[in-house]
Amino acid sequence: MSQQTKFLLDESQMPRHWYNLQADLPKPLPAVLHPGTLQPVGPDDLAPLFPMELILQEVSQEREIEIPEPVRDVFRLWRPAPLYRAHRLEKALGTPARIYYKYEGVSPAGSHKPNTAVPQAFYNKQAGVKRLVTETGAGQWGTSLSFAGSLFGLEVEVFQVRVSYDQKPYRRAVMETYGARCVASPSNETAFGRSVLAQNPNHPGSLGIAISEAVELAVQRDDTKYALGSVLNHVLLHQTVIGQEAMTQMTMADAWPHVVIGCAGGGSNFAGIAFPFIGHGLRGGEKSRVVAVEPAACPSLTRGKYAYDFGDTAGMTPLTKMHTLGSQFTPPGFHAGGLRYHGMAALVSHCKELGLIEAVAYNQVECFEAGVLFARNEGIVPAPEANHAVKGAIEEALRCKREGKTENILFCLSGHGHFDMAAYQKYFAGELSDESYDERELAQALAGLPSVPETV
Amino acid sequence: MSQQTKFLLDESQMPRHWYNLQADLPKPLPAVLHPGTLQPVGPDDLAPLFPMELILQEVSQEREIEIPEPVRDVFRLWRPAPLYRAHRLEKALGTPARIYYKYEGVSPAGSHKPNTAVPQAFYNKQAGVKRLVTETGAGQWGTSLSFAGSLFGLEVEVFQVRVSYDQKPYRRAVMETYGARCVASPSNETAFGRSVLAQNPNHPGSLGIAISEAVELAVQRDDTKYALGSVLNHVLLHQTVIGQEAMTQMTMADAWPHVVIGCAGGGSNFAGIAFPFIGHGLRGGEKSRVVAVEPAACPSLTRGKYAYDFGDTAGMTPLTKMHTLGSQFTPPGFHAGGLRYHGMAALVSHCKELGLIEAVAYNQVECFEAGVLFARNEGIVPAPEANHAVKGAIEEALRCKREGKTENILFCLSGHGHFDMAAYQKYFAGELSDESYDERELAQALAGLPSVPETV
Repeated sequence: MSQQTKFLLDESQMPRHWYNLQADLPKPLPAVLHPGTLQPVGPDDLAPLFPMELILQEVSQEREIEIPEPVRDVFRLWRPAPLYRAHRLEKALGTPARIYYKYEGVSPAGSHKPNTAVPQAFYNKQAGVKRLVTETGAGQWGTSLSFAGSLFGLEVEVFQVRVSYDQKPYRRAVMETYGARCVASPSNETAFGRSVLAQNPNHPGSLGIAISEAVELAVQRDDTKYALGSVLNHVLLHQTVIGQEAMTQMTMADAWPHVVIGCAGGGSNFAGIAFPFIGHGLRGGEKSRVVAVEPAACPSLTRGKYAYDFGDTAGMTPLTKMHTLGSQFTPPGFHAGGLRYHGMAALVSHCKELGLIEAVAYNQVECFEAGVLFARNEGIVPAPEANHAVKGAIEEALRCKREGKTENILFCLSGHGHFDMAAYQKYFAGELSDESYDERELAQALAGLPSVPETV
Repeated sequence: MSQQTKFLLDESQMPRHWYNLQADLPKPLPAVLHPGTLQPVGPDDLAPLFPMELILQEVSQEREIEIPEPVRDVFRLWRPAPLYRAHRLEKALGTPARIYYKYEGVSPAGSHKPNTAVPQAFYNKQAGVKRLVTETGAGQWGTSLSFAGSLFGLEVEVFQVRVSYDQKPYRRAVMETYGARCVASPSNETAFGRSVLAQNPNHPGSLGIAISEAVELAVQRDDTKYALGSVLNHVLLHQTVIGQEAMTQMTMADAWPHVVIGCAGGGSNFAGIAFPFIGHGLRGGEKSRVVAVEPAACPSLTRGKYAYDFGDTAGMTPLTKMHTLGSQFTPPGFHAGGLRYHGMAALVSHCKELGLIEAVAYNQVECFEAGVLFARNEGIVPAPEANHAVKGAIEEALRCKREGKTENILFCLSGHGHFDMAAYQKYFAGELSDESYDERELAQALAGLPSVPETV
């Protein structure tokens, strides 16, 4: 077994195709439904929101989809991303397991999000779009789309959840540095935003509301499209560069993973690391256990219902079958903002139903403990979202210790925490708690799920 | 000429030695003097502060000093660092010049500082030291030493300039994440700190005061040594991995630099990129122009006096001949905190006297303008310090445009600005100004330089 610490790929080993898990699934994804007619949506229904290339990727059944050269050219700024063996962490845990992590914090935005922001900007530019509109919670996605927009000459407008807009002015400054325009959501710029503000002028906002505002604007303007940073099939597809590179690197390390771990909010970095390994197993290759780690305060996979639901609060998006806490569910204000979403990507949910993945939920304080242990041993301060994956990997390593097993554990360290030090500061001050959701509110949100006939 | 964007090295191409410019200088460095006797200091005088290996490096005349394997092992977390060609920036400027940048923001601390923090922690650990004490202004150095200390199992105590301690709590949180203890300076933990507070209980602190406090503590405790993040010969030596890698990468790019540029505060990242090229020229190789860019508000190289001065405010350090604004000089509160130091490294100052380098000063607003242009074209948000190097490179590229010259320009992008977004926020809000120092205060500080006989 190699004692190497870092496994680097040559640029020539950067993936040339995205991997589409849909090609290998034993059972196809349930149809996406039009919210009015409850009939499957076709490409034309999505055309006001996305350029046709992305819509075709959304429904494609091809196993491999070529990555355009201008996209790969931007990827070269930080890809291929490194894979590390966490020797020091292993030693600190006293585990016989070997822990590897794929590090996506090397991108200019500090997370995995540019993997999809760049192709989305490219395809929109190619289709003659002038302006992209999107939403952001913690700011990782807004930052990434602003970055990608600046490189392809697109205007970017970001609806930032009001509470983040006020509490995280530095995130806004990054987006503005890339030339984007940020608007606090709920805003007066959309009918839906005005309706929310009419009920509560001090509404703190939510990701679901910000999505509704962005979609409303995109539909109204001819030169404007919408961009989403997670959840959708094409977004998950773009993230598969992570897992494809990791497969090559784990082969270099002679350490095919027994377990593959990712944190899961909307599901995109999890899918990025996991889908290539799942597909490898489905095609008859060596199988890995695959574990999604989610926050206990927003546990769509472990506590949500597998049902048709809206992606946004206003009910403007198509209906998707997914693990959901209900589109009216408001998660408590914990610090892994990227994991505060009521639903889970349809493809990830489908994998859960097919038994291809496991899911586990952890509380925020234990995740920060894990992140600090990681930082002190491996030298990288993880983002609060990534702390969930770190926690998941540590738990697997401790299981290996109890069972005396020398397994290979791989996890995705999706981003660094340099923008999230306020959360660490609170952790050290003992001000972080494990605030959970209200069970009655969850039951209410689940009871309010749209009614879709079983026959669909 | 290559159209490649990124020039990556294999781990086997990571430098095995540090390059010591002292071996190639046509004239030796002036002696460092004991502040009491005005006699040259010997290794024993420095022993209370530093382990002997670092003292020997401080005075070594050997051209190459081997990098210990445990240090290289930690370097592998992020080194070799990438070198990029700034195709998009060139296009935006319409310059025939080719702009290359060596990017040091890929380190876990986000800057070049770990290049010296890691060997300093290693040599101290090897010498049986238990605790390192240091100072930090903006926080880059404190973060880096905390990071290195955590990996080698050393306690780290950081005197953070009061105004930064209060205004940049996130920096403190990073240091604490790595397990370090931060103290606001001036503090009650040292006699000098108490004397400053007695005069002014609300003193905002300065780097010079924080150095005095750290040195005072290090001298008092047997198991404790001091660590400095710039200025000293051994620190500059450690940074030469930057320039050595860049030489290999510029050769790969078939683009030997006509101009090499770095920002200069204490001088370490500048020396890191520049010294290997200067040495190459001194040994008969192709010569490059070398330009140090400093802030107009703290212009030691362009406005300071070349004279013996203290490194700290209390006058506890040895006397070094350098370009200085006077150790009692307080620079205005501009945002490139890493460049707010009254003196310049002796080796850099000596190079300036020997005509081996040029120096230029820019104001902060034009440097932020340059940084934003860079971010929107190259996708990386530079640290405020690094914006000075960006500005220097842009000015050289525009000169090439005027003169119709296809020169190769290389600069060091010493760190990312993810921790400095408050400064960008002020820039966009129009709240940044070009506040200069008070000419009378400068004259007074220069008049107060210690008197050292010419014969020394």
